[in-house]
Order: sequence, then C-alpha cells, then structure tokens
Amino acid sequence: MYVRGKGITASRTSVNRPKSDNITWNQATIGREQREEQLGQRGCVLWLTGLSGSGKSTVARAVETALLKRGRLAYVLDGDNLRHGLNADLGFSAEDRDENIRRVGEVAGLFADAGAITLVSFISPYRAARERARQAAPEGRFLEIYLDVDLAECERRDPKGLYERVRAGEIKNFTGVDAPYELPTEPALVLRTAELSVSESVAAILDLLVEQGFFPADAGTQRGRSV
Amino acid sequence: MYVRGKGITASRTSVNRPKSDNITWNQATIGREQREEQLGQRGCVLWLTGLSGSGKSTVARAVETALLKRGRLAYVLDGDNLRHGLNADLGFSAEDRDENIRRVGEVAGLFADAGAITLVSFISPYRAARERARQAAPEGRFLEIYLDVDLAECERRDPKGLYERVRAGEIKNFTGVDAPYELPTEPALVLRTAELSVSESVAAILDLLVEQGFFPADAGTQRGRSV
Repeated sequence: MYVRGKGITASRTSVNRPKSDNITWNQATIGREQREEQLGQRGCVLWLTGLSGSGKSTVARAVETALLKRGRLAYVLDGDNLRHGLNADLGFSAEDRDENIRRVGEVAGLFADAGAITLVSFISPYRAARERARQAAPEGRFLEIYLDVDLAECERRDPKGLYERVRAGEIKNFTGVDAPYELPTEPALVLRTAELSVSESVAAILDLLVEQGFFPADAGTQRGRSV
Repeated sequence: MYVRGKGITASRTSVNRPKSDNITWNQATIGREQREEQLGQRGCVLWLTGLSGSGKSTVARAVETALLKRGRLAYVLDGDNLRHGLNADLGFSAEDRDENIRRVGEVAGLFADAGAITLVSFISPYRAARERARQAAPEGRFLEIYLDVDLAECERRDPKGLYERVRAGEIKNFTGVDAPYELPTEPALVLRTAELSVSESVAAILDLLVEQGFFPADAGTQRGRSV
C-alpha cells in the first residue's frame, strides 16, 4: 500500500542563485531545456528518506534499473559514491552529517539541472535539511519519498548489522533509536515497504513520475493501482 | 593553432573507491554501461584550465551548445553554478581554493559516471589538484585541456575587470600575477585562444572527443584540420 501525499506546494526562492550574471543563467536555462528535449524527460530529484533498513538503497537501485530499461537517464547518489569521494572529508558528527546532506542536495540539484532523474538515498532525518535540499533543486523538481517502516521491522532486517551494534552500545546517536527522525510533512509519496514488494515500490514511483510529467507514459508504466 | 598532447597515460588507482561493497559497485558499473549505450556516448571530464581571461567559460559554453545541437548530453560545471551552491561555504584562502577544486573534481567524476560529457571551467592553477581531479574521474575519462594565452593578452581582455583590480592592489595572490600557474605536463589538447576563433576551439575539442571515441563522428564533426 502506498499513500500519495499532497504533492509539491512549497515555493522556492532563488537565494542560492547568482543575481549578478544573468547571461550565464539564461544560457544555463536554455541548456536544460535542450537537454530535456533530447532526453525525452524532465530532470528531477527523488529524495528517498527513512530509517536505516527501510529499503532506500534497494528501491533506489531498482528504480534506476527500471528507468534505464525504459531508456531513461537515471542516476543514484548514495553513501557508496559520495561518502568515499565528495564527502570523504566528513565524519559523523552532527555538523558533518548536516554538511553531508547539504552537499548531496546541491549535487542532486545539479544532476536534475542536467536532465537526469536523480535518486538520492540517505536517511536524512532532519526536516530542515530536506527542505534545504528542495531549495537547491530546480523549482518543482524535488519529490520527497518517505519509506515508512517501523523501527522493529528495520531492526529485524538490519541489512548492515548496524542495529545490532547500536544495541551493543557500539554506535551512539542512531536515527530512530537514540536520535530523532523527523517525519516528512508533505511527502510526494509514502512507501510502506513492509507491505510492498520492491517491484510494487518501483511501480509506485514510476507512476508518480509519469503523473507529474517527468517522462511520458509507455506500456511499461501504464498499470492499474493494484498495489 | 592547437597542439595535440601525448594523451592520457596516467594510470589510476582505486583509492577513492570503496572496497567493501562489490555488489553495489558492480551494479554501478552496469548502470554506467546502460546509460552510455542509450546516450550513444561515453561520459568524460573535459577539464579546461588556464589563466583568468584565457577563454575557459566561453569555450566551455560554446562546446556545450555545439554538443547539444548534435544531440549529445553535455553539462558545464563552473564557478557560476558551484560557487553559489555546493561551494558557497568556501572562500578564497589557499585551503578553500584547494577544497573548491577537490569538490569540483569529485562532482565532475560523478557526472562522467552518469554518462555526461562534462565541461569543467576553473583556473585550477596547481598540477597536484588537477591530478587529483583526474583520479576522481572514471579511468581514462579525464581530458585536460590547456588554454594557453599570454598574461598580457588575458589582461587586455580582462572580461571580469579582475586584472584592473589586481593592478590597483585590490586583489592579492592572483594567478599569473603574484601567484603561480603550473603548466600542464601532458594535456590532451592545448588551445591558443589568442590565435583561434571560438568555433575553431570548439571544433578542436569535438575532434578530440570523436578521435578518443567519446561519441561517434557525424557530418558536423568530420572536418579538415584547417585550424
């Protein structure tokens, strides 16, 4: 079962955009339109948020695979390709986690600007950090997707063995245990992955993308809402 | 006139790549191949380096436009879209400039991995920083392009009025004046933009891309070496 949120209503200011060089930014906007025309899609950020073990990475990779099969340009930003490169200088302090998510949001915005359907897979427990990521994306191109799974189920899955280490006292400030997870207030989509197969989650996200006009419907995405 | 360098011979270690999660990285490699097949091109980083006023931004934007016209996916990373976003926290100290270039290199590597022909336009005066950017790109996908223009000509152009401010003593540590520019040792291409029109520079870069197999030749890029 998945629940459609109220969609994207937040407006976006241009605080992160230079005001001094209109020519360059006009060029950049033209560039985006040209890229999107040739790609046959509109770039966007699919921001997957939820507890460790809620299925973010699995769903992100499965959506990427499904989109590539349909000839769409998709790219996943996750801890594996960012923590070891761009964010290799950052640790796990509150400040560094915040900076980690800030940079991810900025890079995701660039990928969306480049025309890619960009999947972001980070716990990102703080509402303010997710809102900042929305601001960094081109206006109307940020879709927050909440993977809503009980802590007990995440602990049962424990794909990285992290909850076991938390319970053993080896890890502190772990989201959902002894650090907060702030619920999204207006997610574009809520996925209860305890009740959904991976392919059902993928289908829900593809439907959302088609509905919001990020790429045209085709046989592979025209499906009943049987999930 | 442009001079072809010795090409890319530096080998690449995997120091920035996680060793612990082979499954994810296999997936990621498959993803790149699929993206490149559907895009009809191979992702790469075109790293434009040279003094302020040497024409980096102009050439980068013109190459982007030419590639988009040919149906190729191209994206420019420059001060305009990075200094105001991802790197907005950085100033102009030696450390911050170094971190600026480090992040640009990492992001460019991600774009190349996503399949985009990625144009980077930063002075990037230090050899070590450029080499680090090469390491951050997928192996064999980094092309250093040196815009070789005399300081006197750059000062004459002074498109941002920066040299005037340097000479007035308002800016210190300016590359080429009172801070060093370290010449590339093995650039893939040298563009003497004082002797080349923008379209000749663009043609030289497109030729290089075709020669190195980043996209197939078409009527628009099959041209004599008349420049």
